[in-house]
Amino acid sequence: MASPETPHSRSAPMGKYGGARTRATVCFSDGLVFLGGALMALLLVWSFFSFSPSPNIGVKSDDDTLKCSGCSRGVDLRYDPPDPVFYDDPDLSYSIERPVKGWDEKRRQWLELHPSFKPGAANRVVMVTGSQSTPCKNPIGDHLLLRFFKNKVDYCRIHGYDIFYSNSLLHPKMGSYWAKLPVVKAAMLAHPEAEWIWWVDSDALFTDMDFTIPFDRYRDHNLVVHGWTDLVYNQRSWTALNAGVFLMRNCQWSMELIDTWTGMGPTSPEYEKWGEIQRSIFKDKLFPESDDQTALIYLLYKHREVYYDKIYLEGAYYFEGYWLEIVSGLDNVTERYLEMERQDATCRRRHAEKVSERYGAFREERFLKGVAGGKGSVRRPFITHFTGCQPCSGDHNRMYNGDTCWNGMIRALNFADNQVMRSYGFVHSDLRKTSPLQPVPFDYPDEPW
Amino acid sequence: MASPETPHSRSAPMGKYGGARTRATVCFSDGLVFLGGALMALLLVWSFFSFSPSPNIGVKSDDDTLKCSGCSRGVDLRYDPPDPVFYDDPDLSYSIERPVKGWDEKRRQWLELHPSFKPGAANRVVMVTGSQSTPCKNPIGDHLLLRFFKNKVDYCRIHGYDIFYSNSLLHPKMGSYWAKLPVVKAAMLAHPEAEWIWWVDSDALFTDMDFTIPFDRYRDHNLVVHGWTDLVYNQRSWTALNAGVFLMRNCQWSMELIDTWTGMGPTSPEYEKWGEIQRSIFKDKLFPESDDQTALIYLLYKHREVYYDKIYLEGAYYFEGYWLEIVSGLDNVTERYLEMERQDATCRRRHAEKVSERYGAFREERFLKGVAGGKGSVRRPFITHFTGCQPCSGDHNRMYNGDTCWNGMIRALNFADNQVMRSYGFVHSDLRKTSPLQPVPFDYPDEPW
Repeated sequence: MASPETPHSRSAPMGKYGGARTRATVCFSDGLVFLGGALMALLLVWSFFSFSPSPNIGVKSDDDTLKCSGCSRGVDLRYDPPDPVFYDDPDLSYSIERPVKGWDEKRRQWLELHPSFKPGAANRVVMVTGSQSTPCKNPIGDHLLLRFFKNKVDYCRIHGYDIFYSNSLLHPKMGSYWAKLPVVKAAMLAHPEAEWIWWVDSDALFTDMDFTIPFDRYRDHNLVVHGWTDLVYNQRSWTALNAGVFLMRNCQWSMELIDTWTGMGPTSPEYEKWGEIQRSIFKDKLFPESDDQTALIYLLYKHREVYYDKIYLEGAYYFEGYWLEIVSGLDNVTERYLEMERQDATCRRRHAEKVSERYGAFREERFLKGVAGGKGSVRRPFITHFTGCQPCSGDHNRMYNGDTCWNGMIRALNFADNQVMRSYGFVHSDLRKTSPLQPVPFDYPDEPW
Repeated sequence: MASPETPHSRSAPMGKYGGARTRATVCFSDGLVFLGGALMALLLVWSFFSFSPSPNIGVKSDDDTLKCSGCSRGVDLRYDPPDPVFYDDPDLSYSIERPVKGWDEKRRQWLELHPSFKPGAANRVVMVTGSQSTPCKNPIGDHLLLRFFKNKVDYCRIHGYDIFYSNSLLHPKMGSYWAKLPVVKAAMLAHPEAEWIWWVDSDALFTDMDFTIPFDRYRDHNLVVHGWTDLVYNQRSWTALNAGVFLMRNCQWSMELIDTWTGMGPTSPEYEKWGEIQRSIFKDKLFPESDDQTALIYLLYKHREVYYDKIYLEGAYYFEGYWLEIVSGLDNVTERYLEMERQDATCRRRHAEKVSERYGAFREERFLKGVAGGKGSVRRPFITHFTGCQPCSGDHNRMYNGDTCWNGMIRALNFADNQVMRSYGFVHSDLRKTSPLQPVPFDYPDEPW
């Protein structure tokens, strides 16, 4: 849907776009400074866990500890003490029809019993996405969904996030745009180690693989969506926010929001009534059924005192952006980023994929500090959302023809993939061309192509 | 291809199937015991990184360190010191046509400069898979590929592995079954933190989400494939091993293997000659072109002294298994596992997805110790490979009709998904039915369905 760039109306630090990440770039050395006397002990631990290279192979060790995959990422995947936790309560249900109570305390108790999950718990993310359980009607639909999913997996691998794909309904009545709510709730319960569940629609993709969520900005909020206050309260539009991408805090507030939200959906005896109410308030909504997006805007509009303080309407960057205002500018953005690389050798330095965040943070600090995102920005759009294209059914909005959608997707996917494949030594020389890739010359772009 | 259960001919500890995992179940407490005096310091570190719950939300912290996603999984994604490493050498190329030299030392130096990646380095895995860059000819092909990919992402999330999907050729001539070699090489260079690159074909899926690779068994080997010595040396069959799933150590030996292997492929001036040589030795090979699988068997056969000691032909479990001998037994295996759950409440205990390995290790210890895998075993098959089905092109082997393939895939995918969705509170009540799911009753299977 169209996303007018109405500025965010609150006093959030919008000017300091990306402030969180520039602050965090030195996290590791910060940690060491903070830890002071524990440094020596930590190093001791490291050398204990260390390996001895053998002549033939890269790395090897006789220490059994290293072979426990549970310990390989700083968390212990094999430790679950017998102490009773919420999972042992027969009354706790994953179903969308049964409310969860006291979730903050339940989650807290679980974390106390699983101390290896405490470091990093404050902003640990699980991304959740999904699509239908049957093949798409559009002959290229599933191919596109596969590539959209690959793109999300790429983003999550680079940033160390878990990702879960759902392709089954968890409630037979909660289909279509309502299907995500039961999945998000189940993911909250299955992932007590995660502070945030990040829902991203199947037709949205990451077009800035470097950008990281400015969690600092959302520290007092429990739900983040792309949206505009003016459109909620003054214009009363059903596109005042986009519910296709949201970051939801894994807490009791969210559990209750999901219950209330679901109360306007297909499992509610008042589902039809809610459709009528929505249309009576949000005049630009043309279809009769109650939908998840209008339902959320309704809650914000009708119960401002309950929800407004906890829902962050992010308008300062493309938390998700409308593809039609993005795709035509991708060549221009590519050129701006090449200029940065020409200017600073650090931006061109080859590196392990795992340390990509260091170079994203560098570019942020050196070139993009204070640069707002959104329409016409030199910034790469963070998430490009092909709203209205309907890649799976193919029943796109008649405003544009299908090829505009599909070609736009291929271009956006290859634009994103160029940021990924660079770490593997390759690049799409033409955004329309997925394969074969071209090798990236050393120190590109100083060398001739 | 058919997989005769010829026993592995060497003195590897086959009887102790899964020995590595049962040993590793107590890794965390082992670590603490070993660390002795450092325990106090470690606890100090933990409490430093700890969080203070607020009344409204689950977990929150004012400590900036916690907001660095780079530090959230025990590794620092934002630390890349300026010291020169192999990436800074203009002569190092990711291309399949340019050999890499001295890789063990280069990787070792990189790890020394990135100490946060040392813990867990001994068996850190990056899974690599992929498929073609264009939509599949088979109308349901891409839908199936999407589900196969979801399955691999599920396995990797549960076990803390990274996964990379390739859908572009890295060399225009290295297409089809040869496409994986350039991708595996690029992944080795892009992931110096990983000890193993695990290639898994797009038409293979994990049907035991609990099982973990017995790395201990492969400590002196650099390549693991499903295969049988007798078929290589005595029967000289081109199906003596399956090259669709392999675990390759990220080391110089593997770099050189890839060079030699590629020397029999489409980029070689002697590509045609190699096709003839392969057919002259492996009589059951019917097609004329040199292929990656026969090429690998050729190396083992012809240069036994060079390769046999370093290539582990795993035949003791389904490192990958032929779907036709697996799919019909899935109901029986389901029933065996339900029996285990009826017998022991620990197997039924609900838990966070992140600690699933603990329950897999428990089942291994309690019920499956010493139970060999493979045809007719009560064990779940680890990886089911739909060899011959060709989901993307749809040009399946004429031995069976397409529906046998596609229905088998759906059953296997739902069989695997049941092991995943259990952690989210849901189950496929019928393996033929992908959606909607049914809620799992508390303490199932003791309660009525």
